[in-house]
Amino acid sequence: DPTLKVFTLNSNKELSKEIAQHIGIELGESSVTKFSDGEIQINIEESIRGCEVYVIQSTSDPVNQHLMELLIMIDALKRASAKTINVVMPYYGYARQDRKARAREPITAKLVANLLETAGATRVIAIDLHATQIQGFFDIPVDQLLGVPILANYFANKELDDIVIVSPDHGGVTRARKMADRLKAPIAIIDKRRPRPNVSEVMNIVGNIEGKTAILIDDIIDTAGTITLAANALVENGAKEVYACCTHPVLSGPAMDRIQNSSIKELVVTNTIVLPEEKKIDKVTQLSVAPLLGEAIIRVHEQLSVSKLFD
Amino acid sequence: DPTLKVFTLNSNKELSKEIAQHIGIELGESSVTKFSDGEIQINIEESIRGCEVYVIQSTSDPVNQHLMELLIMIDALKRASAKTINVVMPYYGYARQDRKARAREPITAKLVANLLETAGATRVIAIDLHATQIQGFFDIPVDQLLGVPILANYFANKELDDIVIVSPDHGGVTRARKMADRLKAPIAIIDKRRPRPNVSEVMNIVGNIEGKTAILIDDIIDTAGTITLAANALVENGAKEVYACCTHPVLSGPAMDRIQNSSIKELVVTNTIVLPEEKKIDKVTQLSVAPLLGEAIIRVHEQLSVSKLFD
Ligand SMILES: Nc1ncnc2c1ncn2[C@@H]1O[C@H](COP(=O)(O)O)[C@@H](O)[C@H]1O
Ligand SMILES: Nc1ncnc2c1ncn2[C@@H]1O[C@H](COP(=O)(O)O)[C@@H](O)[C@H]1O
Repeated sequence: DPTLKVFTLNSNKELSKEIAQHIGIELGESSVTKFSDGEIQINIEESIRGCEVYVIQSTSDPVNQHLMELLIMIDALKRASAKTINVVMPYYGYARQDRKARAREPITAKLVANLLETAGATRVIAIDLHATQIQGFFDIPVDQLLGVPILANYFANKELDDIVIVSPDHGGVTRARKMADRLKAPIAIIDKRRPRPNVSEVMNIVGNIEGKTAILIDDIIDTAGTITLAANALVENGAKEVYACCTHPVLSGPAMDRIQNSSIKELVVTNTIVLPEEKKIDKVTQLSVAPLLGEAIIRVHEQLSVSKLFD
Repeated sequence: DPTLKVFTLNSNKELSKEIAQHIGIELGESSVTKFSDGEIQINIEESIRGCEVYVIQSTSDPVNQHLMELLIMIDALKRASAKTINVVMPYYGYARQDRKARAREPITAKLVANLLETAGATRVIAIDLHATQIQGFFDIPVDQLLGVPILANYFANKELDDIVIVSPDHGGVTRARKMADRLKAPIAIIDKRRPRPNVSEVMNIVGNIEGKTAILIDDIIDTAGTITLAANALVENGAKEVYACCTHPVLSGPAMDRIQNSSIKELVVTNTIVLPEEKKIDKVTQLSVAPLLGEAIIRVHEQLSVSKLFD
């Protein structure tokens, strides 16, 4: 069996340490720094010849920096004769640029897939790719893990009464259904529509939420506009209280203010993206994906199916 | 003939405007902005179907941002059916990572070449690639232009007496020779060596510089350690005065302080890299590569040889 080695880059060192602990190994020795002019300098400090290497990196903000760290690391590992280069991306940046919505737009999620393969990646392990189709952007194996079981488990332990799982838009209904199955709850959908151009959107709620504890679920919360408007609409329409959850806490721009001032009682997220101190407010609970990723790495190493793992 | 279009990205908009003026066309309409989370958003605002497109971008600091802008733009142009995608890189970042100097190092200059080709570039036009071998990293045509004629021309017009062209290290002697040919001057070389480990370097000067006006030439001046030490050694060894010049003014970290406090009388650079206001000190003269690049684009468009142009 080839030796398993796990390396971290700069986006998510704490998570990487936790993953290595879960597997029961030390992180590989490497340094990722910058030259004076901002160019990335990578040194791998131990032999990886013939090894099965896992590199952990979320391409979160600063996304271009984090992506280039990853590509340069893959290049270095390839030239140092790694047997396989398995890229573990808890958060896959640029995933929302997954189609041409308008003429002459790039499809950056596909570009990123091509760049990773060109650099030398031989497998990708990711969590909640914004669009499942991104798996098909690659010609190498892609294991997609899900955040739903971790989030559902947290809410199950809270033993809330009379809950309803709510999708904040049409695109997220399948995810809400998966969550609802695990919590044996019904679903509802925020059905936004604009009656006429230049008239503000109407927040229609499909499903029964009155007097219930609503749990909003999304994959990414970025500026938090959608989720906080949804939460307020739920309360206005008679929900008893509103929780929200997501896998990837991008939380950029006005997100924290909006969440703080919204009717959301608690926001539950995972650690696919690091939360800086100013985002660790009382309302926010962060759950770890380290056991999930650690287990996935062990199973890939033992050539067992990952998809069967938690889903 | 396919229509020629020139687009700029964010690294060097002034230079791009000048190039378009030289060619006698308007820059293509596009916007390159950032989403709230830092991801790059590119919109091309005019049809480029069937066109011969030139994209101008220096991968200078912030190098990863500038490189990703370029890759995403190439992807968008490719999907919008450009006939050819010609990447004009006045400064090619990561060029100094062009070989494995130590075990397990990346060769990032080659990685960048692969990324550009994967994105869809069909030709590269660059100026003074740190190593000429970088042309061979590509499987598409690469035109390398030279900064020497522009720099030499400036010094020729100064009508300095009794000059000597000095290479600040062994690697730059060929460049110094090219400059010397144009100025009909002799050359000298700073021959640094470390007599024993842990003993400081000795700056030996090969060639006659006594009483002469020395012109130091390099391709890149980054932290300016090499060039300012060389200048001081020249003065200590009897040079009358010292000028310095380079194509790419990276000028990072302590560079400006070192230059200000050195015996360099004037530093002559080009605009392959934008100089922010604080670097535009009295000692620094900046020459434009716009005529060179404009002429090169015209010649490529007319299917004429670029290498014969200025060299
Ligand atoms: N980083 C980003 N931040 C905000 N919006 C984005 C980002 N990337 C892509 N988009 C836009 O989000 C939309 C896709 O999101 P979705 O409909 O949720 O798949 C498209 O209109 C994109 O232009
Ligand atoms: N951005 C950079 N800043 C400073 N040094 C670098 C940079 N990129 C590469 N190097 C180092 O510069 C050396 C190559 O420079 P040279 O000998 O001039 O070709 C190698 O030892 C590299 O590790």
